[in-house]
Amino acid sequence: MTQESLILNGKKVANDLKHCLKHKITQISEKAGKKPKLAVILVGDNNASKVYIAHKEKAAQELGISSITHCLPADTDQKDLNNLIKTLNEDETINGILLQLPLPANLSPDIAILQINPLKDVDGLHPFNLGLIMTGKPNLIPCTPFGIMRLLQAYNFNPKGLKTTVIGRSRLVGKPIAELLTNASATVTIMHSKSRLNDLIDTVKQSDLVIAAIGQPNFVKAEWIKDGAILIDVGINRLDDGKLVGDIDFENCLKEGKAKAITPVPGGVGPLTVAHLMLNTVKAFEIQCFGYSSIEL
Amino acid sequence: MTQESLILNGKKVANDLKHCLKHKITQISEKAGKKPKLAVILVGDNNASKVYIAHKEKAAQELGISSITHCLPADTDQKDLNNLIKTLNEDETINGILLQLPLPANLSPDIAILQINPLKDVDGLHPFNLGLIMTGKPNLIPCTPFGIMRLLQAYNFNPKGLKTTVIGRSRLVGKPIAELLTNASATVTIMHSKSRLNDLIDTVKQSDLVIAAIGQPNFVKAEWIKDGAILIDVGINRLDDGKLVGDIDFENCLKEGKAKAITPVPGGVGPLTVAHLMLNTVKAFEIQCFGYSSIEL
Repeated sequence: MTQESLILNGKKVANDLKHCLKHKITQISEKAGKKPKLAVILVGDNNASKVYIAHKEKAAQELGISSITHCLPADTDQKDLNNLIKTLNEDETINGILLQLPLPANLSPDIAILQINPLKDVDGLHPFNLGLIMTGKPNLIPCTPFGIMRLLQAYNFNPKGLKTTVIGRSRLVGKPIAELLTNASATVTIMHSKSRLNDLIDTVKQSDLVIAAIGQPNFVKAEWIKDGAILIDVGINRLDDGKLVGDIDFENCLKEGKAKAITPVPGGVGPLTVAHLMLNTVKAFEIQCFGYSSIEL
Repeated sequence: MTQESLILNGKKVANDLKHCLKHKITQISEKAGKKPKLAVILVGDNNASKVYIAHKEKAAQELGISSITHCLPADTDQKDLNNLIKTLNEDETINGILLQLPLPANLSPDIAILQINPLKDVDGLHPFNLGLIMTGKPNLIPCTPFGIMRLLQAYNFNPKGLKTTVIGRSRLVGKPIAELLTNASATVTIMHSKSRLNDLIDTVKQSDLVIAAIGQPNFVKAEWIKDGAILIDVGINRLDDGKLVGDIDFENCLKEGKAKAITPVPGGVGPLTVAHLMLNTVKAFEIQCFGYSSIEL
């Protein structure tokens, strides 16, 4: 049976969220007598990181969030990085701290993230914030998984009872989205580089929901897809010809038409990540200023 | 094909561990000039809790760990409980704090656990310690999942690539064992009360490793078991006739003989839980006294 797969418009969902946030930020800035402020830390001069940071700064500006970027040289040592984070922790004008990853090889992201005050950890990567997800009562949630949950909600896809495969076990995406979906009562299997390929294929073939986050172009094949499945693609891979593709073979999945819904790359999960960074900054600001947040999961 | 299933002797593995710990405690107590000390908090008079605490006190005494139990009345309010925890956090003679669960209904275990200094959280239930498991660099690990990992290791069962079903999504067992097994490169599916029963049965039928932690007597049936599977039973359920059984139908699984290995109830996972509480206490003591621990996962 061939049907038309719905293309999930992450950009629209992100824009709707940003629209709401802009309104909220006006209100809470007035109430607090100041605007939310995000501090970004960039170490070295990774070009992709610079592009990401420019996106984040632009989104912040549009929404009425102040931002400041601290650029440190590539040869910064761990102590200096940690000290900058401590200064930002103590600075009451700063509500959110974003450490742009990856760091140069001589620096430990684990150690640096541990320095961030969990209440200012707008990337949601501090172990305390990750652990809160495991307790079922999250506060600041990593931006991409948070965006995926909103996308599902925006299209009225309830994860409850859905057989779900998460491909990838990173701290940024795979592990937290698996926890969030488990909290939402999906039945989740986490696949990764050490999973047997035939197990992976078998499991995807039985899945109502597939989240791909491994960074391998067109890894998930159209013939693995179950009728009526929902496909969420976190991958952004640039091919030799310059084209951007995800981890799921979007074109052939569309042709086969078995999926109920699929995210495009670009324009799917990507815009949601930046929007949820803004949302986390607003949430951190509210908690710091008022002791609570009006934002729900 | 019927074979003989190996009955995994958790009691022996626990006793071997306690033997090593006793030796280590003698050494580190001498080095530090004091013994490790565990503070236990019991609120109200739940009889099962009293039995568990007696087991823990006995194990501590045998190994050379001091322990003190604070018994609070059932009508203790949250503030008083939190204050006791804060006092124990600040008390340098106390290395581990164990809050016996469940608490009376008027108290929040989440709020109470958040008060515990993560470095003294020998139950491993603080969000910070749970989050460290997600980062792949755990410190204090919840005792039952920690015990299961040791049991697998003791019998040379490497989880890498094994198709694994975890039944149960609790903070105490299901979620942390799923994270630990994912870190150890198993392919893990978490099942729970909202999973479809046919999905659960199908997945168990394909699994090389099954961890059952739902508290339903004999829930996992012999006919669901894959040839050569390893079965780990966390459940302890008392039947009307007084008999203790697990969440896996041990007797029929043994009769069918398809499993490669199975834990009995009692004598399987249970003794490992108490032994790992002792291990966590030693680890916390070492970190507090010397700044590092000699104990590995």
